Amino acid sequence: MKKQFNTIGIIGKSQDPGIVKAIGEINLFCQKENLIVFLDEYTSSHTGITDIKTAHREDLGKQCDLVIVIGGDGTMLSAARTLCEYEVPLVGINLGRLGFLADISPSEAEDRLREILKGEYEVEERVLLSASIERNNKEIARCNALNDVVVHKWEVAHMIETDTYINGDFVHTHRSDGIITSTPTGSTAYALSGGGPIIQPGLEALVIVPICPHTLSNRPIAIKADSKIKITLSNTGRHKGQVTCDGRMLHELEIGDEVFIETNEHRLKLLHPKGHDYFQILRAKLHWAEHP
Amino acid sequence: MKKQFNTIGIIGKSQDPGIVKAIGEINLFCQKENLIVFLDEYTSSHTGITDIKTAHREDLGKQCDLVIVIGGDGTMLSAARTLCEYEVPLVGINLGRLGFLADISPSEAEDRLREILKGEYEVEERVLLSASIERNNKEIARCNALNDVVVHKWEVAHMIETDTYINGDFVHTHRSDGIITSTPTGSTAYALSGGGPIIQPGLEALVIVPICPHTLSNRPIAIKADSKIKITLSNTGRHKGQVTCDGRMLHELEIGDEVFIETNEHRLKLLHPKGHDYFQILRAKLHWAEHP
Amino acid sequence: MKKQFNTIGIIGKSQDPGIVKAIGEINLFCQKENLIVFLDEYTSSHTGITDIKTAHREDLGKQCDLVIVIGGDGTMLSAARTLCEYEVPLVGINLGRLGFLADISPSEAEDRLREILKGEYEVEERVLLSASIERNNKEIARCNALNDVVVHKWEVAHMIETDTYINGDFVHTHRSDGIITSTPTGSTAYALSGGGPIIQPGLEALVIVPICPHTLSNRPIAIKADSKIKITLSNTGRHKGQVTCDGRMLHELEIGDEVFIETNEHRLKLLHPKGHDYFQILRAKLHWAEHP
Amino acid sequence: MKKQFNTIGIIGKSQDPGIVKAIGEINLFCQKENLIVFLDEYTSSHTGITDIKTAHREDLGKQCDLVIVIGGDGTMLSAARTLCEYEVPLVGINLGRLGFLADISPSEAEDRLREILKGEYEVEERVLLSASIERNNKEIARCNALNDVVVHKWEVAHMIETDTYINGDFVHTHRSDGIITSTPTGSTAYALSGGGPIIQPGLEALVIVPICPHTLSNRPIAIKADSKIKITLSNTGRHKGQVTCDGRMLHELEIGDEVFIETNEHRLKLLHPKGHDYFQILRAKLHWAEHP
Repeated sequence: MKKQFNTIGIIGKSQDPGIVKAIGEINLFCQKENLIVFLDEYTSSHTGITDIKTAHREDLGKQCDLVIVIGGDGTMLSAARTLCEYEVPLVGINLGRLGFLADISPSEAEDRLREILKGEYEVEERVLLSASIERNNKEIARCNALNDVVVHKWEVAHMIETDTYINGDFVHTHRSDGIITSTPTGSTAYALSGGGPIIQPGLEALVIVPICPHTLSNRPIAIKADSKIKITLSNTGRHKGQVTCDGRMLHELEIGDEVFIETNEHRLKLLHPKGHDYFQILRAKLHWAEHP
Repeated sequence: MKKQFNTIGIIGKSQDPGIVKAIGEINLFCQKENLIVFLDEYTSSHTGITDIKTAHREDLGKQCDLVIVIGGDGTMLSAARTLCEYEVPLVGINLGRLGFLADISPSEAEDRLREILKGEYEVEERVLLSASIERNNKEIARCNALNDVVVHKWEVAHMIETDTYINGDFVHTHRSDGIITSTPTGSTAYALSGGGPIIQPGLEALVIVPICPHTLSNRPIAIKADSKIKITLSNTGRHKGQVTCDGRMLHELEIGDEVFIETNEHRLKLLHPKGHDYFQILRAKLHWAEHP
Repeated sequence: MKKQFNTIGIIGKSQDPGIVKAIGEINLFCQKENLIVFLDEYTSSHTGITDIKTAHREDLGKQCDLVIVIGGDGTMLSAARTLCEYEVPLVGINLGRLGFLADISPSEAEDRLREILKGEYEVEERVLLSASIERNNKEIARCNALNDVVVHKWEVAHMIETDTYINGDFVHTHRSDGIITSTPTGSTAYALSGGGPIIQPGLEALVIVPICPHTLSNRPIAIKADSKIKITLSNTGRHKGQVTCDGRMLHELEIGDEVFIETNEHRLKLLHPKGHDYFQILRAKLHWAEHP
Repeated sequence: MKKQFNTIGIIGKSQDPGIVKAIGEINLFCQKENLIVFLDEYTSSHTGITDIKTAHREDLGKQCDLVIVIGGDGTMLSAARTLCEYEVPLVGINLGRLGFLADISPSEAEDRLREILKGEYEVEERVLLSASIERNNKEIARCNALNDVVVHKWEVAHMIETDTYINGDFVHTHRSDGIITSTPTGSTAYALSGGGPIIQPGLEALVIVPICPHTLSNRPIAIKADSKIKITLSNTGRHKGQVTCDGRMLHELEIGDEVFIETNEHRLKLLHPKGHDYFQILRAKLHWAEHP
């Protein structure tokens, strides 16, 4: 039987003290399994690991059949944003702290990877967002996001006023600290702190969550994933704003700028060991008591 | 050109003082348009209207091309639960108070109906729920709901403990006043009071909303509309519960009883005049300020 | 030096399987300390403990210098409602599960009691509520509550409409599942599930918390503890209601009935070992992560 | 009878287009009443009004018996922060939009002022906050606030981690967008958007409200107004913060800095016309439906 995964990429969370050991173990495991391994160049240069052949992150996308991401959900977010367009599947191994995306613990990593290599896995597709900002009808910035695109106020002390449109229909004018547009993946991240609902990963939905809205009757709205969202800094407002993608600053926002948010044509392919249970992770992460 | 709508049913909110006049006007309009009209038998007997041919509600479903519902959202809910299986489209005319479903105001009713008769309308399909209760593996009750199925506590002063499963996967054990399973239609009704998100009508989703949950980290969860939900009164609990469909008592619940909730195979077909704008209704109903 | 506490009452949670052993140990400890002990008559008859002199609960209030309550917060609530008028201090020992009121664990009970007997304790006063219901200006029911007085709907599926007044000033008309009036003690109980704030026990405040309010902009209101609250079932509503005190049914409510709620003239005196830390209990009970 | 109010200060919202006319009318009214009037110097220089004697704002505090503030709640906040130490009473006249503090509408201003001058008024005292920041045990900044003192994150995309202490007792470690400490006055401002309760103005309480807390079980806590609050940027965090007083930037915050917040020794004295009704303003501002 021809093996499905022959060339493996490894991306690690460079700043974690345990990352060198963790990558070493996964690499050793891959060697034993006779797999070709490429280490992400950035990870290599920031960890000092020199005994694994390296490749630029985009090249991992082009050349690998599978990319193993070792770190936390942040490492997964970063890998997903870059690699989604290559449609290479990712598997996430955490460094001891359970993640929503990095859901395999180090102690079980080899067993789970062995199963995955044998074809015993489940594929889950996750929606990503594309955001672009237009000023005077010209695009001035663009980014991908796996969790969320957030239109924020610029200074902490000044609310912004935004107009939101879905597929061209006006939804509301908001005075708030900002507006989160979140994927199902992001619904357990910042959107949850902002009072948003949990969105099951397989649901083709986005959720728009106001941050500290001035109008008390505002509520999160879940909409179809194929919606085209437009958020503008209202002309009546006095203040600047800014846009972040997965918590990283994309660009500042002036009055009249338009932020366009829609689903990316590519999806993140996440591999999970058989029997993966989203609700179990949810219970563990949110400290929900299970049935005694 | 053959007309699309020839036989029209009328259902009215019997207990409203203005209903006789409102039905009379719609009937007169239909006569002028040379349409065959049947008045819902129950509406007839409770309003004393005798000059319109009557039909039993199920027969309206079988014989009519269109049913005009005059009243509030409650009248629409009731009509929808009965008529959904006949797939006859409904149009909702309110009695002066804008509804999410009964969204045509009396003053514009004739103009809007004339447009609809000419084929100038939009069809919107709404998901309904089917709920059944099993005791010792035998079904003891069953109902449809357009808004929500709620598992409630029995007495106000005693929380219930419930276990929730989605497609067989355990989700959580809850101590709460109850659990709402809501359609997008119901997301602006009781589920919203309970802290749930607004779900865009076209989104193929249900939302599970705990009522006053004892565990503070519990949050509403939006899931795929084709999910099979099971909620059981936990064996560790001491208390009885009850189930309502669209706010109507279905059956009491004993420890060990299982409530099964899933999407109905039939959808409600709602007709709207062209240019129908869900967000406008949302803004009006929730008192959201529009752009000045 | 004259001892402060010579006559000790014991009240236990009768239905707990470990209660006989727990009471036996406390009784033995008291004997060694040469204290006179009376066991609550109800506790005696429901546990079968016969080797301790018994007294009716009111007599515990009259004759004892200190009442030791063994059980959970529910046992404390019940003891407090009856004993508050005698101003006898209570100390709460739990049966293994930390309570907000029953905050001494069984393993440390003897050490803590020894300290208290030596005068090493802190006294905390807790506000109680008095509620009365008037129909046609005649009182038809009255009760005390340490946690909360709740005006509930009667049937789960029908909201009630209530008018709330504070010191005669109209506050709001509410459509909701009910309205909680809570003490600081009750602010970590049902009021918290309903979305209310935590009120520090020493703060002379009550909090009014709507349950699933129909008006989305309604919010909990904290008011002065010496306020006179009146809640009436609105004349425009169609439905009955009911009133509970600490989760126990007081009386049903008809349209026009008036519920009067105010602070009881007596306070509960709670004794805590020195170094008692409310916030530590809060962190433990609400699963707040402490500083690593 | 000796008049109580002889020397009147006027402070206006300089940037409002209607302010010159509004000040002119109030000045004319005062002239007719034979009162000595001083216009706030800053208001004078920013409006171009030259026909009223001016005084520096502090001198208004020293010389006036009453200060009339014309503008919105922001104008009142600013006046209160400066004038509170002089204990001169303020009365607030709005420019057409009802405020919580500027609660007299322009059309009724003369009638209400005439009543107040006759001694027909109610005095309300409002708590203010004092905040100071210490770095290496040295104070580096200090301010007053009538609404709130907020410890914010520095950059929108990075949560901060804070430790909160009340009277030296550790309360919690928080990961959030920030922490609001609000007076009753501020409870209807930013704290309300953040999910805090409404605090009745006369209640001697502060409320601590987390902004988008990472821990879902965190809740607002209402505490005694005489509490000493300390909030520190946690040593385990990586990020800077900042502190605002009534929405105005006070100082940036580094890891280890300590923010001390307590009630100011001075109170704001607000004069209201007889029959002032806080709950009426609440209903109007929050769009609560009144009894039909």
